[in-house]
Amino acid sequence: MNIMSDIPKTHPRYKSLMLRERLVAGFDAGYVVPQGLIAHGRGEMFYYLLGEKTTKEARAAAKAAAALLLEAERPVISVNGNVAALCPKEVVELAEASGARLEVGLFHRSDQRVSKIAEVLEKNGAKGVLGFLPDARIPGLESMRGLCTSEGIYSADVVLIPLEDGDRAEALARMGKRTIAIDLNPLSRTSKAATVTVVDEVTKALPEIRACVEDLADDPDARRQALERYDRDGNLAKVMAAMMRNLDAKA
Amino acid sequence: MNIMSDIPKTHPRYKSLMLRERLVAGFDAGYVVPQGLIAHGRGEMFYYLLGEKTTKEARAAAKAAAALLLEAERPVISVNGNVAALCPKEVVELAEASGARLEVGLFHRSDQRVSKIAEVLEKNGAKGVLGFLPDARIPGLESMRGLCTSEGIYSADVVLIPLEDGDRAEALARMGKRTIAIDLNPLSRTSKAATVTVVDEVTKALPEIRACVEDLADDPDARRQALERYDRDGNLAKVMAAMMRNLDAKA
Repeated sequence: MNIMSDIPKTHPRYKSLMLRERLVAGFDAGYVVPQGLIAHGRGEMFYYLLGEKTTKEARAAAKAAAALLLEAERPVISVNGNVAALCPKEVVELAEASGARLEVGLFHRSDQRVSKIAEVLEKNGAKGVLGFLPDARIPGLESMRGLCTSEGIYSADVVLIPLEDGDRAEALARMGKRTIAIDLNPLSRTSKAATVTVVDEVTKALPEIRACVEDLADDPDARRQALERYDRDGNLAKVMAAMMRNLDAKA
Repeated sequence: MNIMSDIPKTHPRYKSLMLRERLVAGFDAGYVVPQGLIAHGRGEMFYYLLGEKTTKEARAAAKAAAALLLEAERPVISVNGNVAALCPKEVVELAEASGARLEVGLFHRSDQRVSKIAEVLEKNGAKGVLGFLPDARIPGLESMRGLCTSEGIYSADVVLIPLEDGDRAEALARMGKRTIAIDLNPLSRTSKAATVTVVDEVTKALPEIRACVEDLADDPDARRQALERYDRDGNLAKVMAAMMRNLDAKA
């Protein structure tokens, strides 16, 4: 099904319709789950409340996220179906820039989905994608949901978890890992469980973090400063306040 | 895919997970479209902002909606894939109580979807479901999107449009019809185009309207009063204010 066939590029909703089309294509290809489509709708609403733009809070969080990745000994980026459908190129580029490994990490796991997502990432230039042969388990998650690799997520010190489920985000935090969430809902369990939370649309957040990685790569002082200045709860509260102002203005 | 298999009934999110499961079942059966899943996610977020409960504004709107249906000469209820998946029984019961015809009305129309939805409604007791053989067109909607029946929506004076797309809602309003929207987004074009807008979760709104139909059926004075007292924009503004208070409380 091609949603975009009759939508002109000048349509005010073009960007959001394009993202939907990518997601539906991933669904048709068998690696986006129905729950992923519903979750995307929830994200769309929060992005709408956010005025569909990158806030300065998101930029500050992206800077802190980049610093965490650069300071990490074993950074890993967890990739699920929605991320693979929406921004495969961007996630591979961030892994490359930051030296992070990519691991397919799914809440609704099947071998078929893992291999399809790995394939999408490889087509976009990824090397050594982890996740297909899990040999470890995230404690506190039942059955398939906890599977991961000892080389990747299990032994990582920093994990970037874009569009992550709350149970999985909390379980990673309980393991003592520092996590970076990309989530449009500032009130979600994922947003509240992460060390750093970037409240922005994922296709914009990943390139923003990558740009910060480039800026901070040779500047340990700036990295320290970005982390010191970042206050997750204060940042999330400001994002919420911006959403409420926007809601008020639309009403 | 059975989402609910490992979700206990005592889970705080049981109701919303159950609705998702119904929708995914309708998707698997081929009559819910991917766009319907995404739209459901958007609705979930607004319902969350609403505190997941029926407001007194929703009750006042349901009363006005029931009055409109009872005052109508040719009331029709338009049914799409999400409505058929989420609350087939409730929509059939409202049609029966109010004397409204049921017509399958789809934004993403295919004969296959129409016949599957008609079948779902018939399994739930509906008789004479319209929509399979469209012989008229809603002006201003391109191609398949405008198709309807002359016996049903085309000649209706009141149309109930639960979970309706904004283009279709506006086109029906331009035809001079009085419309009743059920929509969780008080800012949507659908909400703003309808004569009466019930901002509530559809599986709760339909039985609420039916109860009001029963209450008002023999009481023309109460019907007049319900319509006189109902002020759409004031009602929507109060719902928005409630959402903002909830957002503030959660923050």
